[in-house]
Amino acid sequence: MPRTRVHNLNISLDGYAAGEHVTLDAPIGGAERLFAGFDGRFIHGMDAVDAPVTLDRALTTLWGQGIGAEIMGRRKFGPQVGEWSDDGWRGWWGDETPFRTPVFVMTHHPRPPIDLPDGTSFRFVEGSPHEVLALAREAAGGRDVRLGGGPSTVRQFLEADLVDFMHLVVVPVTLGRGVSLWEGVSGVEDRFTVESIASSSGLTHQFWNRNGRG
Amino acid sequence: MPRTRVHNLNISLDGYAAGEHVTLDAPIGGAERLFAGFDGRFIHGMDAVDAPVTLDRALTTLWGQGIGAEIMGRRKFGPQVGEWSDDGWRGWWGDETPFRTPVFVMTHHPRPPIDLPDGTSFRFVEGSPHEVLALAREAAGGRDVRLGGGPSTVRQFLEADLVDFMHLVVVPVTLGRGVSLWEGVSGVEDRFTVESIASSSGLTHQFWNRNGRG
Repeated sequence: MPRTRVHNLNISLDGYAAGEHVTLDAPIGGAERLFAGFDGRFIHGMDAVDAPVTLDRALTTLWGQGIGAEIMGRRKFGPQVGEWSDDGWRGWWGDETPFRTPVFVMTHHPRPPIDLPDGTSFRFVEGSPHEVLALAREAAGGRDVRLGGGPSTVRQFLEADLVDFMHLVVVPVTLGRGVSLWEGVSGVEDRFTVESIASSSGLTHQFWNRNGRG
Repeated sequence: MPRTRVHNLNISLDGYAAGEHVTLDAPIGGAERLFAGFDGRFIHGMDAVDAPVTLDRALTTLWGQGIGAEIMGRRKFGPQVGEWSDDGWRGWWGDETPFRTPVFVMTHHPRPPIDLPDGTSFRFVEGSPHEVLALAREAAGGRDVRLGGGPSTVRQFLEADLVDFMHLVVVPVTLGRGVSLWEGVSGVEDRFTVESIASSSGLTHQFWNRNGRG
């Protein structure tokens, strides 16, 4: 049974995983400090990345393993709100994205898909977490589905009990404000077995494995 | 510049990484306890392995990332010593091995290569660590070379200063005897930066990154 997985979700000490106001200059909404120590070169594995392999980087390599599709919220795709304008926006990533799979962007404003030459296709869909997950599973062809964030999207799937695995990273910064992963979520830890791993970098990695699997 | 990497080298508290007497019934020479907690399903990534993702399993997924060839000692390939007999031995693994790349078996008794349908080819070569590494690098086509063990083979490459990365796993067992990784090796840690990671399982993972790279 394919899993629904969250990877490298960085969270501040006060529980925020993104800032409130995403703009063209602030893709994480002002919470860019959460990713100051993140080495994105490792998301597809340690292949040809000539840098020391630390614990933090090693765990980052899980991101793409066995993934056949991603689901993301609209705010991860771009800063626009409301109806889409004809501004040619194709996401933050240009023609070479990290995804290389179908990506389902959850939005109340559907639009035609965007197919990129690197294997990424953005598909804009409206629906409940269950409905969007069904679409992503079908596109993933038996592989796992990555739930790419942001935090309010992950929270929706947690509340619907659709998350099988989460790799959270507690970053030793405080933000004071932002979008919380946990807002209104209570007792979700009862459904998971949680392993906490302290890194010499100051990060704490948490693996949340849903009980009753494997 | 491609690396030479060691992965999942399990070591007892008293420094042994294999037993002394490899036989058909004891591929690790009596030190099988070193691998009692090892989940080999994760060496090619967490793809379709329906088991909780623990720290130990997550780090195991580094094994195959970016690897284009393996070097192993003869004792890892089989229990035979001296001249090869015509017994049809093709390694411990049958027709589906974990390797799926060229594998260079270091031996003083060369023999014709063995090509398997899964992409693995065993090539039996005599030479110094430098010479064998040159062959493996060429076969790896720009990818990294994994140094597959056993411990005396890894020790030869350490003494020749040819190891760029090691993932060692200190297992909380004592063996009392066996083949030590460290025998006669002194001060090798000066050439590396070492990160130690305690696992809730009782294992301690160590990442040895060679200084002056990356």
